Amino acid sequence: MSEFSKNVFSHYANVTPGHLMIGGVSAAQLATEFGTPLFVLDEADFFDRATAWKQALEQAFGDRAGTVYYAGKSFLCKEVTRWLAVVGIGLDVCTGGELAVAQATNFPMKRVQVHGNNKSESEIRTAIQAGVATLVVDSFQEIERIERIAAELNTIQRVFLRVTAGVEAHTHEFISTAHEDVKFGFSIASGAAWRAIHEVTAASHIELAGLHSHIGSQIFMSEGFEAAAAKLIALLAQYRDEFASELPELDLGGGYGIAYLPDETTLEPVGILTELAAIVRAQCAAHGLSVPKISIEPGRAIVGPTTTTLYTVGTTKDVVLEDGGIRRYLSVDGGMSDNIRPALYEAEYHAIIANRTSSAPTINTRVVGKHCESGDIVIRSIALADDAGPGDLLAIPATGAYGRSMASNYNHVPRPAVVAVIDGAARVIVRRETHEDILALDQ
Amino acid sequence: MSEFSKNVFSHYANVTPGHLMIGGVSAAQLATEFGTPLFVLDEADFFDRATAWKQALEQAFGDRAGTVYYAGKSFLCKEVTRWLAVVGIGLDVCTGGELAVAQATNFPMKRVQVHGNNKSESEIRTAIQAGVATLVVDSFQEIERIERIAAELNTIQRVFLRVTAGVEAHTHEFISTAHEDVKFGFSIASGAAWRAIHEVTAASHIELAGLHSHIGSQIFMSEGFEAAAAKLIALLAQYRDEFASELPELDLGGGYGIAYLPDETTLEPVGILTELAAIVRAQCAAHGLSVPKISIEPGRAIVGPTTTTLYTVGTTKDVVLEDGGIRRYLSVDGGMSDNIRPALYEAEYHAIIANRTSSAPTINTRVVGKHCESGDIVIRSIALADDAGPGDLLAIPATGAYGRSMASNYNHVPRPAVVAVIDGAARVIVRRETHEDILALDQ
Repeated sequence: MSEFSKNVFSHYANVTPGHLMIGGVSAAQLATEFGTPLFVLDEADFFDRATAWKQALEQAFGDRAGTVYYAGKSFLCKEVTRWLAVVGIGLDVCTGGELAVAQATNFPMKRVQVHGNNKSESEIRTAIQAGVATLVVDSFQEIERIERIAAELNTIQRVFLRVTAGVEAHTHEFISTAHEDVKFGFSIASGAAWRAIHEVTAASHIELAGLHSHIGSQIFMSEGFEAAAAKLIALLAQYRDEFASELPELDLGGGYGIAYLPDETTLEPVGILTELAAIVRAQCAAHGLSVPKISIEPGRAIVGPTTTTLYTVGTTKDVVLEDGGIRRYLSVDGGMSDNIRPALYEAEYHAIIANRTSSAPTINTRVVGKHCESGDIVIRSIALADDAGPGDLLAIPATGAYGRSMASNYNHVPRPAVVAVIDGAARVIVRRETHEDILALDQ
Repeated sequence: MSEFSKNVFSHYANVTPGHLMIGGVSAAQLATEFGTPLFVLDEADFFDRATAWKQALEQAFGDRAGTVYYAGKSFLCKEVTRWLAVVGIGLDVCTGGELAVAQATNFPMKRVQVHGNNKSESEIRTAIQAGVATLVVDSFQEIERIERIAAELNTIQRVFLRVTAGVEAHTHEFISTAHEDVKFGFSIASGAAWRAIHEVTAASHIELAGLHSHIGSQIFMSEGFEAAAAKLIALLAQYRDEFASELPELDLGGGYGIAYLPDETTLEPVGILTELAAIVRAQCAAHGLSVPKISIEPGRAIVGPTTTTLYTVGTTKDVVLEDGGIRRYLSVDGGMSDNIRPALYEAEYHAIIANRTSSAPTINTRVVGKHCESGDIVIRSIALADDAGPGDLLAIPATGAYGRSMASNYNHVPRPAVVAVIDGAARVIVRRETHEDILALDQ
């Protein structure tokens, strides 16, 4: 893995006077050729990060390394599935729509895992027929449905049980609770997980391959992971004691943190996975269990830092604040339709002027979109050059995850294209929508 | 206007044992015929509400009634523009995409007004060429652009200036401030509005038709509106004093509140507009001004209550809470992709079981979607019949505004169809997306 891929902000070490380069192409040239707003995905960086997680899992767990499942919900398109196939990792999908992307490129179904708290019967049937590796079972109703549909299709479907360990992970801490007030999974503490294990084990067309537990989002440290691991591995031991065999696999989910701001750090795969491996090994040893195959589901951690959004500045406006200071409103040609995260999660982003250098002093700036809504904010507060204005190109790093993936047509704004750049060449992997595309649904 | 249209919850007075009727069609039949999730729009209700706002403006302001501009951002499609044309009201658009909808049905451009804090030059050009009634000018840069483009096109463009009155409207109160920290408009207090008036007045290809001021969202009372009106009308008087003529029109924007929950009330058009008229007349009299033509921009207040989302329940799950109580998670086949408002604004909604009656006791229920995200919540807490479960049809009222309009393809979930029902007949006005539609953008 290159130094470049360790932290998205090393991107900006490449800023040469006058223009930002991404994948060997200048941002200004990309904007001219493909228009803005534009998602620019650094393809080599995607391969580096996907490969890094695969190698780190192998390095940390050795022959107990399971599969890296890329979390498709973060960003999925046909080209991404082709890349995953080349890297040799798996794909985690949540819906029939995400599965359809994988099917469209003949992605190997034996490396596809299907999540979802409310899979439809049609989605279950399609997934089983397609031959996916694993369904991650999320409710008692689903056990009955999978058993019935697998029986109809005369097959045995491999599943994980999604369990909740009673550990809440926040960005920098884990809190152990007896309860998990979430829609996902079977609670270990309430006994639901144990009952589900019995139901699945009794079902004749379901093979229980292991447990799945997702412990949080934007996790940066393993501290506290012991609490979750202890409960998961105690459940594996309880299974071994009851059924006299060991469950072969444990999927630890995703949630690995990345840098959105220059003073943040993207989690380093080998570091975190080595820490998790030590914890898992110790807990298994304590229960006399062999270490199960360990799988993980990074999504944001692979695609998030690879992508930069390019916007063109349209207007500026200075507002006098209550303290007498000035806020510069800088409006770009996209906004909450292509990045809902600031409005939805108060997520923070960084920006740089991508088409030129400036020695102007900075001014307190709020970067806003073009939507008819006050909450349409890209960056709430950032010091930007005082001379930034109409026609300038603004680059927002780390927009690869949950940007295009959650994009809307609010205000009938067409969704931006996604362009992959590598070795000085750029090509469209998701084309820009048009007004005609949007109107095509109208009668 | 029928009793029915005064409060969305009178919909549910029509619940006959066994099924909810909307526009003379049973919800169950709609779900069977068109699938779920489904937006069901009561067409007669739309006409009633649009007509009610038009008549109320005329009743309240007499010959000073300007135009009701339907705020297209709330929900726009080709069929809606046809309805607006029949009712004889105007359309407020924010982007070239919304304008393209109106153009697609030859909606009269003389009744179209164009908003936007960052209109592109292409959007400005298209709007002027199309012959829209008014551009609502939002920045100094835009004044230069409109003047230049109108000159190139050898025309004179009519505009409003969007001004900020230094009054913050919250749901139940208005707060007068010297500052407005928003991206929209020219501040009256800072002098920006006055400078903009001078610039526009000096421009030879721009005709200043009046002022525009939008005072908030989900407003229920006129109390405090005096503060905003006083500043707006003082500015009109200042204009008259300086230019020895009166600006002919004042657009008060939208933001009229509707009921989302059974104990809330949808604002009654005649009531609120009569109150606003009294305030405007008094302020104008105090300045010796004639009352300008008054225009308004209801969006949510027209379409919001007309529409009901139908979901099918897929799974249920009971979770033990910290206080020992139970929370029932009830998962439906849509969620944050078709209604982002609960996640984005903590918006609250109501639900009823639409396909049957139940005499079961109720249970503390959280209605959640099928997306792979904990925040994918439709209703955070509601008492629903204990026997509600898989296969039941859930109706969520008042989803007409900012539902389909802000919908995404998160998790590659196709966006629902919108069906208009009237006089016992249903027809698709926006068709359901397919996986193929989504994949059509992929290369």
